[in-house]
Amino acid sequence: MRDEGKRIGFVPTMGFLHEGHGALIRQSAARCDATVVSIFVNPNQFGPGEDLASYPRDLERDQNLCLETGATVLFLPEVAEIYPTGFQTHVEPGHLADTLCGRYRPGHFRGVATVVAKLFNIVQPDLAFFGQKDFQQTAVIRRMARDLNLPVDVVVVPTVREADGLALSSRNTYLDEEARQRALTLSQGLLAAKAAFDEGELEPVKLVALARTLMTGADSIQYLELVDAQTLEPLQGPVDRSAVLCVAAYVGSTRLIDNVLLSPSPGLAGQSA
Amino acid sequence: MRDEGKRIGFVPTMGFLHEGHGALIRQSAARCDATVVSIFVNPNQFGPGEDLASYPRDLERDQNLCLETGATVLFLPEVAEIYPTGFQTHVEPGHLADTLCGRYRPGHFRGVATVVAKLFNIVQPDLAFFGQKDFQQTAVIRRMARDLNLPVDVVVVPTVREADGLALSSRNTYLDEEARQRALTLSQGLLAAKAAFDEGELEPVKLVALARTLMTGADSIQYLELVDAQTLEPLQGPVDRSAVLCVAAYVGSTRLIDNVLLSPSPGLAGQSA
Repeated sequence: MRDEGKRIGFVPTMGFLHEGHGALIRQSAARCDATVVSIFVNPNQFGPGEDLASYPRDLERDQNLCLETGATVLFLPEVAEIYPTGFQTHVEPGHLADTLCGRYRPGHFRGVATVVAKLFNIVQPDLAFFGQKDFQQTAVIRRMARDLNLPVDVVVVPTVREADGLALSSRNTYLDEEARQRALTLSQGLLAAKAAFDEGELEPVKLVALARTLMTGADSIQYLELVDAQTLEPLQGPVDRSAVLCVAAYVGSTRLIDNVLLSPSPGLAGQSA
Repeated sequence: MRDEGKRIGFVPTMGFLHEGHGALIRQSAARCDATVVSIFVNPNQFGPGEDLASYPRDLERDQNLCLETGATVLFLPEVAEIYPTGFQTHVEPGHLADTLCGRYRPGHFRGVATVVAKLFNIVQPDLAFFGQKDFQQTAVIRRMARDLNLPVDVVVVPTVREADGLALSSRNTYLDEEARQRALTLSQGLLAAKAAFDEGELEPVKLVALARTLMTGADSIQYLELVDAQTLEPLQGPVDRSAVLCVAAYVGSTRLIDNVLLSPSPGLAGQSA
């Protein structure tokens, strides 16, 4: 395809696809001549005690969703193909990987960056599509692509939500109906903070407090932070640039993440990127 | 050139080129349609107290050597172009980088692997040529290319030596005539060990001792080790596979490295790679 001058899109996934992945594939199909979807549950981005063994899989359903949404190539590597005997080189992200999820999942973004670099080099796409729901992941990958001069444009696609606001995630399958209702309070908190921001509330402390007040369904909130959308560093004062309110929380034993972007209107923003 | 289907060769260097580089460029020119030579004194592979500031430079002479040997493109990036503000992602080699030079130059091979990955991604060559003199570097880069699926064939070209055996190195320019004579004892030791090996001596302890006895000109020997050519791990018994005798030593304040390959003849080798 490359030899024919075709524009290649790439959607790397861990499978158990949902409409969030569907949106990535559709956008790739709309912008590229061919769309490669990879499904690889990457052991190197799971820590001890995380859900590698139980991570949900349903290849037949995944294949159907890929076909329906416009994928042209499905890439299903084996673990031994990605990490052969003797494998030892890693891509080490910088301080973007040390905050938020990185504080609680040591090595996670090293695993992500390494496998994404490998997949980019194998597939050699022109564009690669990632969901905004994994906001820190998109920041790490964008930075990696720039820092290592990977000849790939990284495209971030807005989070897809259920009608009631729940962010789509393969891990939602872990939730029973009661847990799902409780998980819903996470997006409710984020979306309420965004609404308050859109109506003029610019104080990080107040925005975070508002969100936290509503997140009553979480058994524990691992972090809830309003950070600069470029650097991921906590905002020190009123929101004067693109920021993102990020949460990671447990509902039962299920760890969920979500985020909303808070972008100052052009009239207000001094330095929005 | 790529769009025209041309085969691209790449010779990454730190400049102050000599006939060792010349051999790399000539081999690339013979095998490829176009040969890119980069000259970049990479600050990230020098440690504190090393010779970054004094590293020799002579761009005009370099350009002439490139022209004479068949280079078609000269790439001379600035430091700020390779490491722009915010740069933070590194390629971290594994245990191949922890031994030999890696023990004495912490971070060196991380700096090498990172800049070579970047240069590979910028130039996107089909083949890249490295000198055997930097044996551990070639092992780290080969491993990196394989581990990160970089679509580049790494070619290692034998060390070029002066008529008297001295391995060519940009750092030889630091040596006055007396120091040069003393430096010569390093290659004399290595080549004597190789001669003994070729005549049947297979005991690592004896080969190392023979080499060391002759290296009388060194002010200090940082390491002198006979290691497996693939793993860089010290040989435990008689040489039964491809091995390399590596030395790093100081002559005055100049640190020099050199090595010789000891390859069992096919009739003897059980597992030569």
